[in-house]
Amino acid sequence: MDLKKHVANIVDFPKKGIIFRDVTPIMQSGEAFCYVTEKFAEYAKAKGATVIVGPEARGFMFGCPVATKLGIGFVPVRKPGKLPRKTINEQYDLEYGSNTLCLHEDALSSDDKVIIIDDLLATGGTALATAHLVEKAGAKVLGLCFVIDLIDLKGKEVLKDYDVYTLLEYEGE
Amino acid sequence: MDLKKHVANIVDFPKKGIIFRDVTPIMQSGEAFCYVTEKFAEYAKAKGATVIVGPEARGFMFGCPVATKLGIGFVPVRKPGKLPRKTINEQYDLEYGSNTLCLHEDALSSDDKVIIIDDLLATGGTALATAHLVEKAGAKVLGLCFVIDLIDLKGKEVLKDYDVYTLLEYEGE
Repeated sequence: MDLKKHVANIVDFPKKGIIFRDVTPIMQSGEAFCYVTEKFAEYAKAKGATVIVGPEARGFMFGCPVATKLGIGFVPVRKPGKLPRKTINEQYDLEYGSNTLCLHEDALSSDDKVIIIDDLLATGGTALATAHLVEKAGAKVLGLCFVIDLIDLKGKEVLKDYDVYTLLEYEGE
Repeated sequence: MDLKKHVANIVDFPKKGIIFRDVTPIMQSGEAFCYVTEKFAEYAKAKGATVIVGPEARGFMFGCPVATKLGIGFVPVRKPGKLPRKTINEQYDLEYGSNTLCLHEDALSSDDKVIIIDDLLATGGTALATAHLVEKAGAKVLGLCFVIDLIDLKGKEVLKDYDVYTLLEYEGE
């Protein structure tokens, strides 16, 4: 499948100089959405995943179908104030300022083997913080899946301790 | 399935006097998550849906697996600033202030028949605004699915012009 034809390229969004790779047309196409989630499900099954973890909000869109395809659970990672029960948190630096991600503290157990799913790998900050949250909860990270890798941002180097599976590569930011 | 055992009841969240019905344990259970999304998929298939629409963010969690089960597209409805291409918008009133929801203007066509999926029906404001967005885009709303109906808030009356399918009912707010 020519998946790139289902990615919209938005110049200067969310700010000048950035080309935003918009995956909503992938989801809008039943065929493309099934293709991507099936590829991720095959990867997660081969790895032996017991649960899928996805960060807010596009990680929900790709992660949840993979969980239901495999008949395993999905656990969301969210911004502060969104999860109603007690959470464990991970703070990480952005270009300007910092961000915090949260995981329900009872959502994962030490028996869980996790695949993390999100739409896009950029600098890897969100993905690494998500992996650290999973490990703080006592579970094991088996790998991470992304639809898109912005290769110039070298996210795979940041995630060098993990297995990373991506479907599309783009050069330039 | 005793689905209620997979709903966590959080007293005084997000503010005092509210019992928050937390559906994350449904997703955390592969069996419960498959059950809910299969029920919604059966409903959407019987209605003849060509696309699933879900509002941010829990609508993504339940709507996306239904789309991939049926091999049809998923279209997100999001808060302002989140969708990168040109949107159509719908503003609606909250208890205090107002909220705006956005839909990519090219995401739906006049041929599309839509099922809207979200986790919880409360006052129905978000759901009605989502239905109006779908109609502004020229598509038809065939029905709406929710895991939970907070029946005392009378959301079904607000949605009286639409077919509404729910799995669980709770009394009290």
